[in-house]
Amino acid sequence: MNRESFAAGERLVSPAYVRQGCEARRSHEHLIRLLLEKGKCPENGWDESTLELFLHELAIMDSNNFLGNCGVGEREGRVASALVARRHYRLIHGIGRSGDISAVQPKAAGSSLLNKITNFLVLDMIKLAGVHTVANCFVVPMATGMSLTLCFLTLRHKRPKAKYIIWPRIDQKSCFKSMITAGFEPVVIENVLEGDELRTDLQAVKAKVQELGPDNILCIHSTTSCFAPRVPDRLEELAVICANFDIPHIVNNAYGVQSSKCMHLIQQGARVGRIDAFVQSLDKNFMVPVGGAIIAGFNDSFIQEISKMYPGRASASPSLDVLITLLSLGSNGYKKLLKERKEMFSYLSNQIKKLSEAYNERLLHTPHNPISLAVTLKTLDKHHDKAVTQLGSMLFTRQVSGARVVPLGSVQTVSGYTFRGFMSHTNNYPCAYLNAASAIGMKMQDVDLFIKRLDRCLKTVRKEQSKDSDDNYDKTEDVDIEEMALKLDNVLLDTHQDASS
Amino acid sequence: MNRESFAAGERLVSPAYVRQGCEARRSHEHLIRLLLEKGKCPENGWDESTLELFLHELAIMDSNNFLGNCGVGEREGRVASALVARRHYRLIHGIGRSGDISAVQPKAAGSSLLNKITNFLVLDMIKLAGVHTVANCFVVPMATGMSLTLCFLTLRHKRPKAKYIIWPRIDQKSCFKSMITAGFEPVVIENVLEGDELRTDLQAVKAKVQELGPDNILCIHSTTSCFAPRVPDRLEELAVICANFDIPHIVNNAYGVQSSKCMHLIQQGARVGRIDAFVQSLDKNFMVPVGGAIIAGFNDSFIQEISKMYPGRASASPSLDVLITLLSLGSNGYKKLLKERKEMFSYLSNQIKKLSEAYNERLLHTPHNPISLAVTLKTLDKHHDKAVTQLGSMLFTRQVSGARVVPLGSVQTVSGYTFRGFMSHTNNYPCAYLNAASAIGMKMQDVDLFIKRLDRCLKTVRKEQSKDSDDNYDKTEDVDIEEMALKLDNVLLDTHQDASS
Amino acid sequence: MNRESFAAGERLVSPAYVRQGCEARRSHEHLIRLLLEKGKCPENGWDESTLELFLHELAIMDSNNFLGNCGVGEREGRVASALVARRHYRLIHGIGRSGDISAVQPKAAGSSLLNKITNFLVLDMIKLAGVHTVANCFVVPMATGMSLTLCFLTLRHKRPKAKYIIWPRIDQKSCFKSMITAGFEPVVIENVLEGDELRTDLQAVKAKVQELGPDNILCIHSTTSCFAPRVPDRLEELAVICANFDIPHIVNNAYGVQSSKCMHLIQQGARVGRIDAFVQSLDKNFMVPVGGAIIAGFNDSFIQEISKMYPGRASASPSLDVLITLLSLGSNGYKKLLKERKEMFSYLSNQIKKLSEAYNERLLHTPHNPISLAVTLKTLDKHHDKAVTQLGSMLFTRQVSGARVVPLGSVQTVSGYTFRGFMSHTNNYPCAYLNAASAIGMKMQDVDLFIKRLDRCLKTVRKEQSKDSDDNYDKTEDVDIEEMALKLDNVLLDTHQDASS
Amino acid sequence: MNRESFAAGERLVSPAYVRQGCEARRSHEHLIRLLLEKGKCPENGWDESTLELFLHELAIMDSNNFLGNCGVGEREGRVASALVARRHYRLIHGIGRSGDISAVQPKAAGSSLLNKITNFLVLDMIKLAGVHTVANCFVVPMATGMSLTLCFLTLRHKRPKAKYIIWPRIDQKSCFKSMITAGFEPVVIENVLEGDELRTDLQAVKAKVQELGPDNILCIHSTTSCFAPRVPDRLEELAVICANFDIPHIVNNAYGVQSSKCMHLIQQGARVGRIDAFVQSLDKNFMVPVGGAIIAGFNDSFIQEISKMYPGRASASPSLDVLITLLSLGSNGYKKLLKERKEMFSYLSNQIKKLSEAYNERLLHTPHNPISLAVTLKTLDKHHDKAVTQLGSMLFTRQVSGARVVPLGSVQTVSGYTFRGFMSHTNNYPCAYLNAASAIGMKMQDVDLFIKRLDRCLKTVRKEQSKDSDDNYDKTEDVDIEEMALKLDNVLLDTHQDASS
Repeated sequence: MNRESFAAGERLVSPAYVRQGCEARRSHEHLIRLLLEKGKCPENGWDESTLELFLHELAIMDSNNFLGNCGVGEREGRVASALVARRHYRLIHGIGRSGDISAVQPKAAGSSLLNKITNFLVLDMIKLAGVHTVANCFVVPMATGMSLTLCFLTLRHKRPKAKYIIWPRIDQKSCFKSMITAGFEPVVIENVLEGDELRTDLQAVKAKVQELGPDNILCIHSTTSCFAPRVPDRLEELAVICANFDIPHIVNNAYGVQSSKCMHLIQQGARVGRIDAFVQSLDKNFMVPVGGAIIAGFNDSFIQEISKMYPGRASASPSLDVLITLLSLGSNGYKKLLKERKEMFSYLSNQIKKLSEAYNERLLHTPHNPISLAVTLKTLDKHHDKAVTQLGSMLFTRQVSGARVVPLGSVQTVSGYTFRGFMSHTNNYPCAYLNAASAIGMKMQDVDLFIKRLDRCLKTVRKEQSKDSDDNYDKTEDVDIEEMALKLDNVLLDTHQDASS
Repeated sequence: MNRESFAAGERLVSPAYVRQGCEARRSHEHLIRLLLEKGKCPENGWDESTLELFLHELAIMDSNNFLGNCGVGEREGRVASALVARRHYRLIHGIGRSGDISAVQPKAAGSSLLNKITNFLVLDMIKLAGVHTVANCFVVPMATGMSLTLCFLTLRHKRPKAKYIIWPRIDQKSCFKSMITAGFEPVVIENVLEGDELRTDLQAVKAKVQELGPDNILCIHSTTSCFAPRVPDRLEELAVICANFDIPHIVNNAYGVQSSKCMHLIQQGARVGRIDAFVQSLDKNFMVPVGGAIIAGFNDSFIQEISKMYPGRASASPSLDVLITLLSLGSNGYKKLLKERKEMFSYLSNQIKKLSEAYNERLLHTPHNPISLAVTLKTLDKHHDKAVTQLGSMLFTRQVSGARVVPLGSVQTVSGYTFRGFMSHTNNYPCAYLNAASAIGMKMQDVDLFIKRLDRCLKTVRKEQSKDSDDNYDKTEDVDIEEMALKLDNVLLDTHQDASS
Repeated sequence: MNRESFAAGERLVSPAYVRQGCEARRSHEHLIRLLLEKGKCPENGWDESTLELFLHELAIMDSNNFLGNCGVGEREGRVASALVARRHYRLIHGIGRSGDISAVQPKAAGSSLLNKITNFLVLDMIKLAGVHTVANCFVVPMATGMSLTLCFLTLRHKRPKAKYIIWPRIDQKSCFKSMITAGFEPVVIENVLEGDELRTDLQAVKAKVQELGPDNILCIHSTTSCFAPRVPDRLEELAVICANFDIPHIVNNAYGVQSSKCMHLIQQGARVGRIDAFVQSLDKNFMVPVGGAIIAGFNDSFIQEISKMYPGRASASPSLDVLITLLSLGSNGYKKLLKERKEMFSYLSNQIKKLSEAYNERLLHTPHNPISLAVTLKTLDKHHDKAVTQLGSMLFTRQVSGARVVPLGSVQTVSGYTFRGFMSHTNNYPCAYLNAASAIGMKMQDVDLFIKRLDRCLKTVRKEQSKDSDDNYDKTEDVDIEEMALKLDNVLLDTHQDASS
Repeated sequence: MNRESFAAGERLVSPAYVRQGCEARRSHEHLIRLLLEKGKCPENGWDESTLELFLHELAIMDSNNFLGNCGVGEREGRVASALVARRHYRLIHGIGRSGDISAVQPKAAGSSLLNKITNFLVLDMIKLAGVHTVANCFVVPMATGMSLTLCFLTLRHKRPKAKYIIWPRIDQKSCFKSMITAGFEPVVIENVLEGDELRTDLQAVKAKVQELGPDNILCIHSTTSCFAPRVPDRLEELAVICANFDIPHIVNNAYGVQSSKCMHLIQQGARVGRIDAFVQSLDKNFMVPVGGAIIAGFNDSFIQEISKMYPGRASASPSLDVLITLLSLGSNGYKKLLKERKEMFSYLSNQIKKLSEAYNERLLHTPHNPISLAVTLKTLDKHHDKAVTQLGSMLFTRQVSGARVVPLGSVQTVSGYTFRGFMSHTNNYPCAYLNAASAIGMKMQDVDLFIKRLDRCLKTVRKEQSKDSDDNYDKTEDVDIEEMALKLDNVLLDTHQDASS
């Protein structure tokens, strides 16, 4: 409402009350102005009212929402379904232009602002999370793996001779595929076992670089966040190798923003050596739906080059999600989530430790991994070779999601490459194990439920084993009783559900 | 509500009424069952009630919505903002798995179903639109250009020697960039002028294939939908060349689904020759927000190969949009939109013709282009070399979006390649011109408003020219009067706004 | 966004584009200003974007949405559920104050504006619908019946001696109860049969007035909209009687706004005689959810008196609904609905006529009733005394809603008063009949489906009758076949469903 | 989705995953079933997912949502605006039938269920809040005052001779008006001062009953929740008087559900004497928007009689709000709110006490009032007779809502009755004072902000007074500085805003 509208309002109801309302409006406007002027995440989260006002204001700046617009192009932001228009707050034009995903669209000032602001906020959060000297970043509506591919494709133009990517092994398919899709040959560097931990074999990396010749190497592709007992790569040392041999360095920081340790590694790597870009998942770090990644780096122009490699306009949906999320949380809210995650990691760690000891198993000692834990499944594996996978499927049907059992000896071929001991990041890890992680947003009830159900499953599997006979293995009565209990559980436990979800 | 709930309901209110309600429920369920069983777009659109019920049902099949779920993984579909969860109907897990964007997710049966069903519906619509023998397709949450890149990257693994892509020129940056990003060298084939039309130079293509050698050519990259006076490529003949030389053929069908002519070309190309994949924009053809494309083809396994090249999970947002849209429209609704577009094309064509003649200009004769039109700006260009771009900006400020003026002699360098006569698809088109298109969803009021404003702008520009002095050119008073008129327009014209928008 | 925000936006994206967006914003603001200044329904409906912006602007003027508000009262507009807040657009404070439902609330300038504006728009629509000289009106969140009660309670203070209300019979419980609840004694005036029509017995009214004495009569309570064969009361003549005897006159115009005839009667009554207030349903006339009524009249101060009788604040929900509806439709949209209703009345009339003749029945000749029709069920009634109600329940289970069968001889006691021939507005109507109405929003498909199903039901009932045996009556096989057909119907027919519903 | 749909789903994605989803669905259904079977508020709040599923299920049981429905009545639940339909979850038919607001509607099984269930849940909460022997209740979409009117109108039929209502004075207009509107003569019983408290004058009540004669008295109309220094009426003693004289007793329990003391009084009154009905606000006790009340009582049939007095169908909106709210909160959530309110009352009490002493004022000792507090404004009043109202308006402009200053000597005439000392519940309270209340949903930040702003305002007023000159009083500079501070406040303080609001 503009001045004239307020004046008209004053004639309809009391001027004093309307002025009070007008004054109140200014508080919302003030917050929006601060955001646009400073380009920083507000310390304190906005309430929905301010947030929706802001999105509404952005939307009416896009040509598809102009009251008098007439469209005679091939792409006019027309939407057939009112449901669809509404769920996108009528921001239909996406982000970027043909040449550049960060570019401004003449038809869509609002969407363009959204894109800019979102990238600013995300940059702000990366700094807050520990990479203080990051120079630029952008949100791209693609998976982390595909975003890594985009980085590799960008590097190709700078290093036309290069064919290889040096890659300390991590058993996650999309990391591997990101290189294959880009058309390069991954050179797998096996990890070394130090105590229980699997760590980067720096000697092997260096040897390989020398063997292949730096010019033939597109980059080193390292990883921070990963499943225990693998731990984040030795980024500092890798960054120094890259600097020394003048090789680019791309870091897969998939869910590392949530961990100050991972972020610190990146900050240090960039300080002492070379890191060209680091890529992280939007959903895994910022609690938004799957679909976006952030490509960040220490050299503004290289990041811009990557953003110019995306041919075409892109979905604004992941940007919108993270914008809403960060404005709702504020930087304080995000900090709080980071703090809680860390606490939950300790709690999960302690609870698993206790439980594992009760079953003569052991929590693997992996102090360098700040997110994922692994607990041995030795006794299970000993008696029965299918017991480990059986445990996995029991947990699945009991609505434990994300727990991951890793049996020995699994072999898998991905895009023509064969990995022995697949899932364990090494050819021969000493034992089978189970992974659990403390990721951002985890609640104490998640831990408690997990421990309780794991306990029950282990008990059941043990009982089966003691019967020492395969034919009894799938005995459904037993499982059914468990199921019944579970169903009761569900109803009771939804008590503890987070009301805000 | 299940049987017991209905029974309880009957005790609370009259059994007869509850039974009536229960019966009514079955009609909704029946529609959902038909969809799942047949995998086809319903003829008649669903009402919002059925649609939301369906989305709700899908959502509660995903683990993040299980009442008793506990998550101990690194990606559990947790969402920080209730606004975000709501706008995605709580479908958070995206689509695909690390290895394959079409794969099923154990944690997310609902999202997986959504993905499958959406791809089925879209396949159905491609058939309906004219490509009857299409074998498979999938929605990918990337721009058309990036999707073309993915196709090229997939072909690389099949044709390791290939370095070149044969590309009949079309002046749209992202088409060109899609090849650059994939790391190939575009071989630009200039178009030939036939009457007013710019058409594929088949001889030049054939000559180039022979010159470079088929094995060194990754594929021919042709285009259907484009701005007049360029017309869709001669797909049949190109497809025959591809078949004869055993070269893959990728078609950029950006906004061609909406045109039976473009679809017919693809169908014919595949019948008489070779087309490996054709790629189309989701937003431009299905009236959804920017952000997705459909990769389709005639060989099921090749399409699957492409889908397996996407490393990581992807945003479900574009799939969700098109699912909602198609279920709301039904195939009849979509057919109606196609029919209206065709009618609007004739209408636009006639109106522009009339107007152009009044100004001694001419509608270019481009019968092979079913979507875009071009009208000469000769008289404008003659007097004043900035008059053409001036017209463009006048239209822009008058809220005409999508109209595109093409002056003579523009030169642009894209990724190191220099294009003379950029925007006109040829080095030296005979005259400057203005483009307008009839795209899906266009309304008669768009045409009428456009013609009215174009008329007014041409009048103003002419007046300026007759004053024959540059300094008067930007005289703001004049423009301001126009602006005032426009503002009044806006308010009056919103009358004709489509209420459903 | 204010000036500074736009300036900041210009620094982030291009100034020209932001200015375009800012200009576009003004069009929305302009519409809002016109509304507030003129207090009239816009001719053309607003789009959702403007509408939601307006509601948002209203909401942030209410103290519960002030960012810095602190509440220490007993009623602070706090809302426990975000779903609830959202569905009310955060307008929580309701309308009115303790003393007056039309009063302004200091805590809630936005809600107060909403209340004023809504009443203005509704007044505008009443004029448009035909009562040009209406002086004032207000929306009250109560049923029509309860609103009539409020009118009667207001009159009590003006006529302390009065005990009776003169009421030409209409067989609708809540009309009758409205008087009982207010504590008055209804004096039922039986209707007279003129042709097929039941009309007001003016002589009886006059005689009763003289018998009881004008001072003992609170008012005459007449009715416009009603089920055929009753027709609207002779308002002009009643109004003249009221004027002559100085008796107040309250008109129940329940669903009469949608009919120019009913509105004309009121306008004429007020012109030639006396009408103090006329009350109409919000939902029945404006296609909003059940829950509100409009109390209108020709004397501003009397309407204000009524509004001051409502003790306490009231729900803003019905006002919000009608505000959204009228702003979406615009006056042109509402006119269109009125026109379509009239057309549908003719169509329904013709179709029923044809069908009835095929079954040797007759459409009753009730030219004074502009909304409701009645068709005889003589042949049905003759053979079987339960056949009429049987037909009613068959229609019900076939999802025909609103059809109403009126058997002969039904007797009902309401609040101690016994009505013979209940539902037929007279003690002894010559025959049983079936009612159908053409109400606002009815579609051709409603008529077609109704005719088809009625045809089928009549056929079935006839077949039953011809078997001439009661025990066969409920033969379920027969019904089941019908049911099966119906289910198929449902799915097929949803084709014709109005997509906008 | 039904069995066949799940089977079809299993063919599309893995059966194991679909079965898991199907299982998960059952948890939601189970909660719904429990609700319908037990008719009790779930202990633990439902998540939005279950809640919306439930509302959706209810909606599709209503005829306006039947896919194959055809409507030929005058009220078919048609909705013109999609926004309106959506905000009511497509539940359009309202609650009740012509004769009875609690009756079942044949056309709307879903809305009827909603009505029943809501009344059950509300009954459950009234018991939980302390009135264990309540027999029946219903939600009515009217203000508390209008609901009281409905009770009085119902009693009229049982006590035709009665003209008076005995009413211990409470200075709240709508309480008084509720009797006037019903057509009765309020007999005001002045309160007696006991210490600081104003309490019921039982002797005066008894004397008045005897003077007027019990048969001439419609009822005693007592009050629980009220502004200090008035305290809840002596319900037990009044109830005994009612029992002894055989006079009905209606209790205005406006915002008393939130206080165990008020509820205890009602429970005790009913145990030892007579209470016919007690009426409470929906919004003030359950944190929903303004618009509904609950009429409850100890005699099932009397409550039914009242519900049968409402002529017509009524808005379901308040019922829907409270249903959503209670299902979201669960009984545990509601208990928690009650507990927090009590704690906040102590906190507010202590903080005000401290502040008042700093200004030589005094917190009035009103131990019987569990919600409202009063602090003297003696020193203010002494110097300047407008200072008290000035303070009120200063608080208002500083966004303190609900604080209420009560100057001495205010006189007001309501419906012809003159109240001296209006707002203070007595003719001559010893001093001016300020009220603040701790109502349900109040947060610590509300208290802190209030205390801080009150402190600042008192300081300013004092400063003004010391200048001892009237002309300086409105010196705006001073206020402006305050305003500036406040604006800064707003932005900073929104930090502490409850994110869930």
